[in-house]
Amino acid sequence: MEKIPYKIYLEENELPKAWYNLRADMKNKPAPLLNPKTLKPMSFEELTPVFCDDLVRQELDDATPFFEIPDEILSFYKMYRPSPLVRAYFLEKALDTPAKIYYKFEGNNTSGSHKLNSAIAQAYYAKQQGLKGVTTETGAGQWGTALSMACSYFDLDCKVFMVKVSYEQKPFRREVMRTYGAAVTPSPSETTQVGKRILKAHPDTPGSLGCAISEAVEAATSTPGYRYVLGSVLNQVLLHQSIIGLETKAALDKYGIKPDVIIGCAGGGSNLGGLISPFMGEKLRGEADYRFIAVEPASCPSFTRGKFAYDFCDTGMMCPLAKMYTLGSNFIPSANHAGGLRYHGMSSVLSQLYHDKLLEAVAVEQTSVFEAAELFARVEGTLPAPESSHAIRAAIDEALKCKETGKEETIVFGLTGTGYFDMTAYEKYNNGVMTDTIPTDEELQEGLRTLPNINL
Amino acid sequence: MEKIPYKIYLEENELPKAWYNLRADMKNKPAPLLNPKTLKPMSFEELTPVFCDDLVRQELDDATPFFEIPDEILSFYKMYRPSPLVRAYFLEKALDTPAKIYYKFEGNNTSGSHKLNSAIAQAYYAKQQGLKGVTTETGAGQWGTALSMACSYFDLDCKVFMVKVSYEQKPFRREVMRTYGAAVTPSPSETTQVGKRILKAHPDTPGSLGCAISEAVEAATSTPGYRYVLGSVLNQVLLHQSIIGLETKAALDKYGIKPDVIIGCAGGGSNLGGLISPFMGEKLRGEADYRFIAVEPASCPSFTRGKFAYDFCDTGMMCPLAKMYTLGSNFIPSANHAGGLRYHGMSSVLSQLYHDKLLEAVAVEQTSVFEAAELFARVEGTLPAPESSHAIRAAIDEALKCKETGKEETIVFGLTGTGYFDMTAYEKYNNGVMTDTIPTDEELQEGLRTLPNINL
Repeated sequence: MEKIPYKIYLEENELPKAWYNLRADMKNKPAPLLNPKTLKPMSFEELTPVFCDDLVRQELDDATPFFEIPDEILSFYKMYRPSPLVRAYFLEKALDTPAKIYYKFEGNNTSGSHKLNSAIAQAYYAKQQGLKGVTTETGAGQWGTALSMACSYFDLDCKVFMVKVSYEQKPFRREVMRTYGAAVTPSPSETTQVGKRILKAHPDTPGSLGCAISEAVEAATSTPGYRYVLGSVLNQVLLHQSIIGLETKAALDKYGIKPDVIIGCAGGGSNLGGLISPFMGEKLRGEADYRFIAVEPASCPSFTRGKFAYDFCDTGMMCPLAKMYTLGSNFIPSANHAGGLRYHGMSSVLSQLYHDKLLEAVAVEQTSVFEAAELFARVEGTLPAPESSHAIRAAIDEALKCKETGKEETIVFGLTGTGYFDMTAYEKYNNGVMTDTIPTDEELQEGLRTLPNINL
Repeated sequence: MEKIPYKIYLEENELPKAWYNLRADMKNKPAPLLNPKTLKPMSFEELTPVFCDDLVRQELDDATPFFEIPDEILSFYKMYRPSPLVRAYFLEKALDTPAKIYYKFEGNNTSGSHKLNSAIAQAYYAKQQGLKGVTTETGAGQWGTALSMACSYFDLDCKVFMVKVSYEQKPFRREVMRTYGAAVTPSPSETTQVGKRILKAHPDTPGSLGCAISEAVEAATSTPGYRYVLGSVLNQVLLHQSIIGLETKAALDKYGIKPDVIIGCAGGGSNLGGLISPFMGEKLRGEADYRFIAVEPASCPSFTRGKFAYDFCDTGMMCPLAKMYTLGSNFIPSANHAGGLRYHGMSSVLSQLYHDKLLEAVAVEQTSVFEAAELFARVEGTLPAPESSHAIRAAIDEALKCKETGKEETIVFGLTGTGYFDMTAYEKYNNGVMTDTIPTDEELQEGLRTLPNINL
């Protein structure tokens, strides 16, 4: 039997006590959020009507390297963390590769993904502020489920705007959220002004994350005692998700393993940003070197085909402007795109790192993603989420390169979640009717039509 | 912070190396399977056309206390075992009880339940025998999923007959099985003689486990290179599932914890039998004393309202006779019964223990089960399977008694699985339209109509 166990579990007392703020170690800081009217950086006062006070402090702070994790959050983390770092012995064998493959598995909780790491933090700060509830959007439903669980724990109201196509394709996610006490509305809806406006212009729209964000922000700012919370993209979210990378690093260090390449799927960037944080920190401080690969859907390719520019975070153009790789707030992925990773933009932190060539990116097509997912399920036992399977695809591709070159690389990837609520997509794949859609250059131009014209 | 961690994980090298055969320590052995024609105990030669040779040896052996777990099975176990023993701190707090509650959580694998423990063993022995494939039935789909995963691992064909009402209410389970390469047929079907016969007599039947078993047995015995495998009830299954109890005991012993009461849901008895095995062994050998509680649905109450008698294991009356607490092979639970635990009989081992008053049993109604499930999900984070929630209900009731009496009892229950594929049932509960059906005495009489008249 090999020396490295199948699953490396940290002890409960080895759980990280502080989140790591990668921005503190970045020489080129991510560009600040801008007020779309004044084009000046958003101030604390401008952000707090939308977001919780303490979260705004975290959002704006690019200097403090560590934020202590409050005891109540640590206590909740202990329900489902530390999560295992798994050695993919069976996958290695199936690929016949000299590569050593590890994955950090974040799916062993009812939300089914890593999203719970930030949801519980955001719910905690909302409760601390004495709020009545929070609003949010959700795409595939992982974030909405995570937030429902977190709000239930702190007895907060939870209003979720769920992208219409997901709401219809994933009714069971809605019931999970309802079981935890959340109110779920398909977006766009008639319950907000912006929803009505979008429905009038595009009655048949499948919805989009950008549009659901607009509705959730409106619902939060128009209801006393409510704030808006977001599951990805924001600096605060990457801060909370650093727990993934910190645990991964602690587990690897325990066995003296140094990864060569670290791979994560990228939608808004929450998982990838969290996973790579402490490793990228070492790279930025010149202490170690790693390759980092962001994997995105070919049908929503913000890194590989987007523009690095200031853009609106939402379709309704109500939110601050963020500098990021973007497909434009007008971009909506093709309806045959299964699963999440459908946001038009990308975390400002990751965008800056990519711009500075500290991070690579690849785009993969969904049929090849499900092919990887099926192989992974059959040999490693866990049925992965379509989102996570993007990282599996890239990890397999790297491992197959090692097979050709004979290099014994150590590959670490993030298995962000399970696919138990994605069986409609798997059914399509099983029936051989899944298709790939790569947006044309014209479609990308159309997505960027609403890009604000800002020269900075 | 308390001394006992939230989750007690054994190390990989602490995984039990042998299964424990409780029958070896039983003074009153469970009655043998009988040939329905001769009414004599089934011999090895009579059983091997249906079951794999090595599994028949395990089935018939009530003397050998331990069976070594083959390396290839141990290796597979390491993908998802040891499973955590969780201290339910949050549930204790919510109930304000002096009781200490632990649960053994078997749901952290894609099959979503403990069924994988026996599935991989049965697939292994089928492979060892050089078979081409196996057939089985599945109700809620947990067993079928587990077997699909196991067969995929050993590259065996897997034919699953799925109870029709579950097939229709749980299409996503079917897709999980298909992702692992299984062929799934709704039962009763036109693909077998017995299926055709049942469909002719009852065209609108929702199907039953007993009927699906008949079809699977026929399919196995009429196809060269195939055998039939079963996920519960049988002695061999309880043997494999002893891994649950052995791990639970090892984890408790590690922290010097002695349980007062051990609780498990009971359908065919695989989980309960496995969980209590080593503890019951101590009780039988006079080394320790524990209370054991079997929890069953009020709508399918084999222990609490069934008859202890020889009965057919299947509706088609093709299988051997087993002595057990039974509602009769003609019994079909009401269509509003959600989830599993719908088998008409009960493990012969557990039936004998219950008859000897070594085990208690309670029946609970499903609305009270879902009430417990919702509370558990909200405070402990994990959305439980309806089956497992029967044990939660009873554990909560025991803990509330402790609150009244002030007793600091230690309660251990089996959380056999997650409810991610049971959201149709949760939706009914969330919408307030779930109902309870308790069979009338007349309905129970009708179920027993086909009970063979054997005096022994």
